[in-house]
Amino acid sequence: MLFLTFLIACGAAAATGYFFQPGTWYDELQKPDVTPPRWVFPVAWSVLYVLIAWAASRLAVIPGSGTVMALWSAQIALNTLWTPVFFGAHRTDIALGIIILLWLIVALMTFLSVWLDAWAAMMFLPYLAWLTIAAGLNHAIWQDNR
Amino acid sequence: MLFLTFLIACGAAAATGYFFQPGTWYDELQKPDVTPPRWVFPVAWSVLYVLIAWAASRLAVIPGSGTVMALWSAQIALNTLWTPVFFGAHRTDIALGIIILLWLIVALMTFLSVWLDAWAAMMFLPYLAWLTIAAGLNHAIWQDNR
Repeated sequence: MLFLTFLIACGAAAATGYFFQPGTWYDELQKPDVTPPRWVFPVAWSVLYVLIAWAASRLAVIPGSGTVMALWSAQIALNTLWTPVFFGAHRTDIALGIIILLWLIVALMTFLSVWLDAWAAMMFLPYLAWLTIAAGLNHAIWQDNR
Repeated sequence: MLFLTFLIACGAAAATGYFFQPGTWYDELQKPDVTPPRWVFPVAWSVLYVLIAWAASRLAVIPGSGTVMALWSAQIALNTLWTPVFFGAHRTDIALGIIILLWLIVALMTFLSVWLDAWAAMMFLPYLAWLTIAAGLNHAIWQDNR
């Protein structure tokens, strides 16, 4: 039940990828050579969403996890916001601001989780790593297409 | 800190209203006579976001609030998703599905909160009432503009 509820939250974030797809605008952008092919993104996100929903369901039952739960809420809302701003509104500059804030919140959430449940913290690490890559790509795309 | 973190989550949901504004598409839709004027929406949402962030910060520190926190996460992600789907992708049909799921989750969250903190549950009630109105408007707009 807990896991499924957190997965619904992730589903909302994931759904933005369906409604705001890359399309020709994205294809025509200058992108760094290291940009992964398109199919990598939904695969990576699916794995990450399951991991962070699972970690959240472990943390939610631990007394004293209120701050981590608040950070989890903030990160899933910011995650849901990023795709429409980037792929919908084409505001790569504001999207960069969003993903930097998202990165900071996930980093803090991961750090605070270590003391509550080290396994959950480890499940957040691939997410933090991927956000680092995504923020780098977002920054490069913003810089190279102004 | 807790309140501010939940407010950041609400801020992400609120920001969608900036990036996906009603515009001419919305102006030209057939809308029910009872549709509130445009300025009512940001005012209502601002009050509601403060209330639900406050309620969440009260609930997060209560042991056993894991399920309510999971539901809070799901509702803020679905809330963030609704605006881009409705005003960005113009998918009033899918937006209706999203807002119905959102309503159910908020109703369950409110119900479960009563036993944890009756004040927090009462702070969710205006949100549930507004979602009922919003879902009704969404349904009418979908029906009248097919």
